[in-house]
Amino acid sequence: MSGRSLVEITDPHDPRIAEFSQIRERDLTGRGGRFIAEGTVVLRMLAAAHRAGRGIAAEKLLLLKNRVEGVADLIDAFPADVPVYVADGAVLDAIAGFHLHRGVLALGRRDAGLAAADLIDNLSDDCLVLVGCGISNHDNIGALFRNAAGFFADAVLLDETCCDPLYRKALRVSVGSVLTMPYARESLAEDLLGKLADAGFEIWALSPAGKIEIGDIAPARRMALVMGTEGEGLPAHILKRFRSARIAQSPGLDSLNVGTASGIALYSMARAMGRLVGPLGR
Amino acid sequence: MSGRSLVEITDPHDPRIAEFSQIRERDLTGRGGRFIAEGTVVLRMLAAAHRAGRGIAAEKLLLLKNRVEGVADLIDAFPADVPVYVADGAVLDAIAGFHLHRGVLALGRRDAGLAAADLIDNLSDDCLVLVGCGISNHDNIGALFRNAAGFFADAVLLDETCCDPLYRKALRVSVGSVLTMPYARESLAEDLLGKLADAGFEIWALSPAGKIEIGDIAPARRMALVMGTEGEGLPAHILKRFRSARIAQSPGLDSLNVGTASGIALYSMARAMGRLVGPLGR
Repeated sequence: MSGRSLVEITDPHDPRIAEFSQIRERDLTGRGGRFIAEGTVVLRMLAAAHRAGRGIAAEKLLLLKNRVEGVADLIDAFPADVPVYVADGAVLDAIAGFHLHRGVLALGRRDAGLAAADLIDNLSDDCLVLVGCGISNHDNIGALFRNAAGFFADAVLLDETCCDPLYRKALRVSVGSVLTMPYARESLAEDLLGKLADAGFEIWALSPAGKIEIGDIAPARRMALVMGTEGEGLPAHILKRFRSARIAQSPGLDSLNVGTASGIALYSMARAMGRLVGPLGR
Repeated sequence: MSGRSLVEITDPHDPRIAEFSQIRERDLTGRGGRFIAEGTVVLRMLAAAHRAGRGIAAEKLLLLKNRVEGVADLIDAFPADVPVYVADGAVLDAIAGFHLHRGVLALGRRDAGLAAADLIDNLSDDCLVLVGCGISNHDNIGALFRNAAGFFADAVLLDETCCDPLYRKALRVSVGSVLTMPYARESLAEDLLGKLADAGFEIWALSPAGKIEIGDIAPARRMALVMGTEGEGLPAHILKRFRSARIAQSPGLDSLNVGTASGIALYSMARAMGRLVGPLGR
């Protein structure tokens, strides 16, 4: 059992848990850096990020009453001043607006963070960066972060047409890595890529029409992988200005999904850079 | 415009389209080799598979009336004796039991096909096979087929605990490749792997605890990749009996999803085998 005091919510309209109200719809709107985290995996990352004190904070938890005992250690991972609200299934579903079978939620906050230029300035000399252009699907943006974190990338940069990685579903698909991976947004992909080029990055745009097979590109100390949307892919001016790589695949099939393509490309680049060392990588 | 004669359906209970009734629930039951194909991408593959005459047949189409003009070429890709039913949105949704925004469906049939042993007997000397053990999630089984087809695998073998790749959602995620990729099922994964070993296949079991990095395994003429479920992964007796490979990744994250992991592993093996040649592979 957790030693924490719990606050029981019996009215779905209780103002103390208003941020969790109708989260499926509200999820689609801006919230000034606030986000809903869902599930034990993401909440564990949130607790760790909160304690690390790098611009991520947990503000409150909302749990299904009958899950409290099973997640006592998770509750204890949050500082004691983070309130813990509990509700039974009917109340929780009425708050959320749909059936929440996981029953483990938190409200978090992300500070504005660094501008892209400052984030780039802070990167080390030996560095792998993922750049997303126009990634508008929540699953895909989550998968990009998940794979960037998994394959030893140092940062993610997004143009303004990418959706917010803090959306509930994106965060869940990322297995919480949105909370630990440094990232920044900038209006135009070209400006982002220009800054990376100025900082000495070798920039590789991934495209089915890429000139070199991704498994064959030469390593460099600072590398950036640029991914576009499913379907249209990267705009022609980016493919023209920068080197392009492809993932060979059998003709006649739809292009790979962004999650799988980013996994293959990041794995290949991390391997070329010598980052996959030992059973758990570097 | 297609020159085909269309049959309009106005009663959701019309027996001519009974197989499309409540497809979300019925999707979970066996149907004697019959399956529902959805969306233009999958229907295009179905038409091609039907014409190729390798055990796949289209039995009827059911289309949203206002999509008919836009998919005239797709309709014409099916033989003239395949009936084409059309319905307006309200009727179509009443048939399917939920809102079908794509509005393009077909009923197909797959013959029993080869037993696993016969399929293995028919494989060429230069061969890449994917084996799925316990893949019970429709998205994942679809992703396995999609990546097997994309990365030049010659066949897929499944144990009996894998779900049916002909489920509507699996078929859709596979972008139709379930209809073109040779596959067979066998009760026990061990029997499948024993047959592959007897046929001279080098068998690699993929696991986070694998002994060799997947990007470093030596090529062979006949190779098999064995994938287990998300979460539990492959059973210990398989990992003990066969060689195992891993995909290095940063510690502290949930394991890669099956789709991404299969993409990375198949890409790596196809590359080792020299199958990624030219802009579109071999």
